Amino acid sequence: MELETLCREAKAAKYEVQKLSTAQKDEALQRIAALLTEKAADIIAANDLDMKNAQEKGMSPALQDRLRLSEARIAAMSEGLLQVAALPDPVGEVLEHFERPNGLKLDKVRVPLGVIGIIYESRPNVTADAFALTFKSGNAVILKGGSDAIHSNTAITAVIREGLKQAGITEHAISLIGSTDRETTRAFMQMRDYVDVLIPRGSAGLIRSVVENSRIPVIETGAGNCHIYIDAAADAEIAKQIIVNAKTQRLGVCNACESLVVHEKVMETVFPAVAKALKEKEVELRADEKALAACDLCVPADEADFAAEYLDLMISVKTVKDIDEAIAHINRYSTHHSEAIITADEKNAEKFLKEIDSACVYVNASTRFTDGFEFGFGAEIGISTQMLHARGPMGLKELTTYKYQIHGNGQVRG
Amino acid sequence: MELETLCREAKAAKYEVQKLSTAQKDEALQRIAALLTEKAADIIAANDLDMKNAQEKGMSPALQDRLRLSEARIAAMSEGLLQVAALPDPVGEVLEHFERPNGLKLDKVRVPLGVIGIIYESRPNVTADAFALTFKSGNAVILKGGSDAIHSNTAITAVIREGLKQAGITEHAISLIGSTDRETTRAFMQMRDYVDVLIPRGSAGLIRSVVENSRIPVIETGAGNCHIYIDAAADAEIAKQIIVNAKTQRLGVCNACESLVVHEKVMETVFPAVAKALKEKEVELRADEKALAACDLCVPADEADFAAEYLDLMISVKTVKDIDEAIAHINRYSTHHSEAIITADEKNAEKFLKEIDSACVYVNASTRFTDGFEFGFGAEIGISTQMLHARGPMGLKELTTYKYQIHGNGQVRG
Repeated sequence: MELETLCREAKAAKYEVQKLSTAQKDEALQRIAALLTEKAADIIAANDLDMKNAQEKGMSPALQDRLRLSEARIAAMSEGLLQVAALPDPVGEVLEHFERPNGLKLDKVRVPLGVIGIIYESRPNVTADAFALTFKSGNAVILKGGSDAIHSNTAITAVIREGLKQAGITEHAISLIGSTDRETTRAFMQMRDYVDVLIPRGSAGLIRSVVENSRIPVIETGAGNCHIYIDAAADAEIAKQIIVNAKTQRLGVCNACESLVVHEKVMETVFPAVAKALKEKEVELRADEKALAACDLCVPADEADFAAEYLDLMISVKTVKDIDEAIAHINRYSTHHSEAIITADEKNAEKFLKEIDSACVYVNASTRFTDGFEFGFGAEIGISTQMLHARGPMGLKELTTYKYQIHGNGQVRG
Repeated sequence: MELETLCREAKAAKYEVQKLSTAQKDEALQRIAALLTEKAADIIAANDLDMKNAQEKGMSPALQDRLRLSEARIAAMSEGLLQVAALPDPVGEVLEHFERPNGLKLDKVRVPLGVIGIIYESRPNVTADAFALTFKSGNAVILKGGSDAIHSNTAITAVIREGLKQAGITEHAISLIGSTDRETTRAFMQMRDYVDVLIPRGSAGLIRSVVENSRIPVIETGAGNCHIYIDAAADAEIAKQIIVNAKTQRLGVCNACESLVVHEKVMETVFPAVAKALKEKEVELRADEKALAACDLCVPADEADFAAEYLDLMISVKTVKDIDEAIAHINRYSTHHSEAIITADEKNAEKFLKEIDSACVYVNASTRFTDGFEFGFGAEIGISTQMLHARGPMGLKELTTYKYQIHGNGQVRG
């Protein structure tokens, strides 16, 4: 079976990629970056086929824009590879060293995860991006992209493989699954013998489907029903600036604010100014009864609004009588991505930081900062919203695991 | 539905347990330790019911011994709780602190995983043990034990809950699933909305079933086809001592050695003495052709032997022409638990440490040291053989995750 062969080759390749030195990896990334620019015309020709299919299918202009590649976009892809090449190599870092009374010397050492599977949707730039991050962190990658971008992804993968070959590195360090049908995707998610980790990137529906069907361990990413809580001790101006930024600076992203939680004491003081600023940005406020009573800029919310990730010009508004109710509400409806409190009260700030069960918890800052680049990681493969392995922005380090290397001189257990 | 109610209560309890101070947790563990001794008669009475059923079912004497509780065993359980109480609390540790140019201050802080589900087989002491470890690390636990031990587990859980109640802590910090049928187990493995992590403890069959059927993220533990490689530069005496220890010191454990890999250069020098020492311990050596030719103490191996975790008086023997072939053989057949090289050659030792893809890799020491206590963790919930989250012995730290706590003063994203 072709898929199983591809997975077996990736598993064999992981042992080769793990052995590469930092210099070998960086040189290969630089070579591939140059080759992408050189071969831009080939990639654009392949992308034209995808664009033609998209137009025939009547794809929306927004999605067509995500799919389209130009010389400038390929140059950006190439630049991305160079940036990853310039990042420090996480592999080989000694995380801990300890010795036991019997003389055993233990090193806990950072090592690659192995074979990483990535299932994603239409943006073809993910192909180069995901390769760069997984390769620099010493992993082999198997990509399963969407049918809309299959010609673009195939062309980009071919260029990467050519670059690897020129650098004397196994081209199975990257594989693209050629079939984009559902059966292949399902079969891929069963390849536990070959694939160490699966990372879905894309819509909530895609991620749910992977979580529900995969037998390979999954890192769940992306869904963000992010809350901002306006505490009784909130500064009105800070609240307004942060909330407008978190809701409207970019709508379709997982770290955008989708839910406001408002202390009843500031419902008639701070909240109306926030609501007015949001309305000026054309945001619809879907509010509970108390907020509706306090501010005529809102429309009624129903239960589903409190759980919604709108990714659009809407926000839900919930009134609470104290910080405990705010925390309980957020922990109930949140997707455990990013939440913020606006407050001048240090005790409440610390309580919120401690008790909110999310990957990133902010005091007086926008949730939009949950991002690998904003955190200074220099790269990002996604934002984890699960508890195991990694939480929040995942950079190169989060694409590694560890092993214990133990030196003895004949020790046996008594 | 009763199971869902139980899971929902555990989820509510996790937010309470997360808030407990170290002193509150330690006091509760001490109180429960005392109560277990006090109520030993009740627990033994319940255990008698399980023992009676076991005898009627014709359970093997070895399994009956695992199931049996006595005052001494209950005292050991109680002592175990006191030991966990004395361990440092991992929760709240600041793993990293960094500041960004925009003034954001980030702390990466260790936090509990949340609700941990544990599916295990007949040993009732796991009930107290798993509670102690998950509780001390700030988690709520849901236990699903085997039907053989249901009365014992119910009695132990009742004592723990009474102790929690006396300490003023929610008794939903521990829950035992009352039904032990397969349908309940399957339903439990779908409770992703409530349970953050599932850890199976028990036979390879149990673990496989959980890995294949769970929609909750799983930490795979336990299976150990551990290899020892006798390098060309091996010291014969060290090889003999370590291999006899790793194979025979305790047979039924996951860190016992199941496979020998022998460099052809020492097949006629070092190996025969090792084989003789193993035969004296009644170990059957199942060997490939070259080993058979070199040593008349062996019987022929077939392909399945190289993948077997015997947990018994057998060991497989594979001849290799060099260290690269040894590494390739081990990476192919290993369960990625623990492997060792016996060598006086430092370069080969470092190559083996680097290229073997297992949680614990040893130079000149027995694989039997892969153990939370031997590593100095003071406790162990299992040995992870997967890549995500934790590898090797899992103590209290491995039952935690992290979150980012971020202090700002009005930062918005530009």
